[in-house]
Amino acid sequence: MANVLVILSGCGVFDGSEIHESVITLLHLDRADATVTIAAPNLDQMHGVNHLTGEPTHETRNVLIESARIARGEVEDLAGIRGDAFDAIIFPGGYGAAKNLCNFATEADHCEVHPEVARILREAHQASKPIGLICISPTIGAKVITGSTLTIGTDETTAAAIEKMGSHHQPRQTEEICVDQCNRIVSTPAYMSAERISEVYEGIGKLVERVLQMAQQPVPQPMHAND
Amino acid sequence: MANVLVILSGCGVFDGSEIHESVITLLHLDRADATVTIAAPNLDQMHGVNHLTGEPTHETRNVLIESARIARGEVEDLAGIRGDAFDAIIFPGGYGAAKNLCNFATEADHCEVHPEVARILREAHQASKPIGLICISPTIGAKVITGSTLTIGTDETTAAAIEKMGSHHQPRQTEEICVDQCNRIVSTPAYMSAERISEVYEGIGKLVERVLQMAQQPVPQPMHAND
Repeated sequence: MANVLVILSGCGVFDGSEIHESVITLLHLDRADATVTIAAPNLDQMHGVNHLTGEPTHETRNVLIESARIARGEVEDLAGIRGDAFDAIIFPGGYGAAKNLCNFATEADHCEVHPEVARILREAHQASKPIGLICISPTIGAKVITGSTLTIGTDETTAAAIEKMGSHHQPRQTEEICVDQCNRIVSTPAYMSAERISEVYEGIGKLVERVLQMAQQPVPQPMHAND
Repeated sequence: MANVLVILSGCGVFDGSEIHESVITLLHLDRADATVTIAAPNLDQMHGVNHLTGEPTHETRNVLIESARIARGEVEDLAGIRGDAFDAIIFPGGYGAAKNLCNFATEADHCEVHPEVARILREAHQASKPIGLICISPTIGAKVITGSTLTIGTDETTAAAIEKMGSHHQPRQTEEICVDQCNRIVSTPAYMSAERISEVYEGIGKLVERVLQMAQQPVPQPMHAND
């Protein structure tokens, strides 16, 4: 039974985690009998957005506290989490991934990734743990694990930013996944391109399935010159 | 293709709509090719709850604006909605159903239902439209459509309150539904009893399937004494 870390960035597509993607990730993991730990950074959101009007608000909301809404209270502070302590890590999308976990939303390819998020990704990657990146969150992977191959769907501006950050972009449809076998990273476009929640369900379903398969595969050993 | 109204009560299990139940309802409806309209009342929540600590907060949040987070911005004010304009209506649960759509959370069987919610339920019921009630929301149905048969799972206190309001309670497991064929009401316990999101997916899946079946069935005509 795999032990999977899901990292949230708030609660709501325009300033936090995309709610449908987050719930569908948790649903697929539970249906596959995975044990799930949900975590989020303890910091203020970049801003709040009124999701009815799309306008920014003047209130302050905390990423960890808002993420607890999706997690039904069961969420941990990212600061106390090690990335190599799990069999796999999955990042749902939503603008929160690009506003709170890094600042890609404002800085594009010059973005900085939140130090705790970058640390956890490096710990997982160095331990060859599979990583699932949904929607806009592949931009985080592109920055931290340079040289990785990812998809954010077919948006040309975001794809170009991924290339500028030293990683590679491959176009995919919503129901498809992009698999980087060497870096053990799986990505899917979800609401970067989806028009229906059922398409998101299909794409994230394939991502979760492949991530869990990878978690069960033995880690490839490095080749030596005299092998 | 059925045209279904989903009524939300905020965003988060402790002060609004239960997020998993809401998303899973939308997912099942979309997978069944239903057209969905999401609506919520335009009013302040009874209160806000910090979902990390469970403590009430002192901020004011609006039910319609918070519901827009789950609806990705596409949510309508309940005041402009008629209950008989749709083929079916579904209420996800969460404390918001018992705190914002009515005041069952504080008044139990003496509760009052928000006038717009009561109006829409009566319009739907009088037009023989099927109604789906999830988690704690059967308490709203029990009050407005007295004499109906409902389940909230196995919680004895809530079941007794439903009986006191003049309706009937039948115990069900999370994966089960309760069908009141005469009143065209389907209910399922969801997180009133669920321990896993996959159980909620199963129960709500059955509810959506039955509600959509009912929406396609001809409305039973009243019998006359000389038939």
